[in-house]
Amino acid sequence: MYYVFHKQMMKMLGQLDKWLETAEAHAKAKNFDPNVLIDARLAPDQFAFVRQVQSACDVAKLSTVRLTGKEAPVQPDTERTIEELHARVRSTIKFLETVSESDYANAATRLITHPRWEGKGAHGADYFIEHAIPNFFFHTTHAYAILRHNGVDVGKKDYLGPQTRHNI
Amino acid sequence: MYYVFHKQMMKMLGQLDKWLETAEAHAKAKNFDPNVLIDARLAPDQFAFVRQVQSACDVAKLSTVRLTGKEAPVQPDTERTIEELHARVRSTIKFLETVSESDYANAATRLITHPRWEGKGAHGADYFIEHAIPNFFFHTTHAYAILRHNGVDVGKKDYLGPQTRHNI
Repeated sequence: MYYVFHKQMMKMLGQLDKWLETAEAHAKAKNFDPNVLIDARLAPDQFAFVRQVQSACDVAKLSTVRLTGKEAPVQPDTERTIEELHARVRSTIKFLETVSESDYANAATRLITHPRWEGKGAHGADYFIEHAIPNFFFHTTHAYAILRHNGVDVGKKDYLGPQTRHNI
Repeated sequence: MYYVFHKQMMKMLGQLDKWLETAEAHAKAKNFDPNVLIDARLAPDQFAFVRQVQSACDVAKLSTVRLTGKEAPVQPDTERTIEELHARVRSTIKFLETVSESDYANAATRLITHPRWEGKGAHGADYFIEHAIPNFFFHTTHAYAILRHNGVDVGKKDYLGPQTRHNI
């Protein structure tokens, strides 16, 4: 289960990278600076686009670190351009590519701790289903929704990405 | 894996039911008709709130039907009030409660077909990871984002719901 979703997170981050390209093309066609989208948000007290993208990357990276024990590169959240967000997404995917199925061997029973959990812990299995996966989709979907709200022509197919189908 | 996510989908729909309550309380406090939220949307060519909620319910219901072979109640998409959306969400949860882990025994290898897939099919395992789960979170998160965009005071804890933690 873990590695199947690990690959799905890599795929979704690849789609997110494409949404950024669509946003750049939209800005070019409408003759505005694509980097104004960095601070776009759906509510004044909700994360802006830049932080939705950073968070999507971080959930993928940190859930992998917590469930496998692998070390990941530190990323300082300094992005201010779409180009820098491309680099953030691509470096996250590059890290995820270094992880293999066997790295997740003890994921279910690992003890996961978090600075905001007030001294409590979670089993890896619960953390993964209840926290990591919902958070990952929360931030990817908000990134998508902010672009969509700003006129960027992304659709459900761009969200889902390629699907494995066969003749019947 | 399937039943673990089945329970997670039930939990998320339970959270969605609570977001509807928060929306009703917000409308009451601001003295507006809560049912105007039904037609709220983030982009003119994106689904309105009502259809995001119907779609979240349908992905949960139809993925369960496709992966287990169970029969589900038909729901005609006629909701026009928040009260009716409560009923839709609750009846979906009620159906999901009738399904047990053993119903998913052959889920991975079932052949999934879809009217929009132009005669192609997908294995249950691929359909579940690539289509059902991302779509479920897409529509629940959009429902949440539309409420948030309209000033409803929901936050990440309301999105995630209760988390399984233990002392360490």
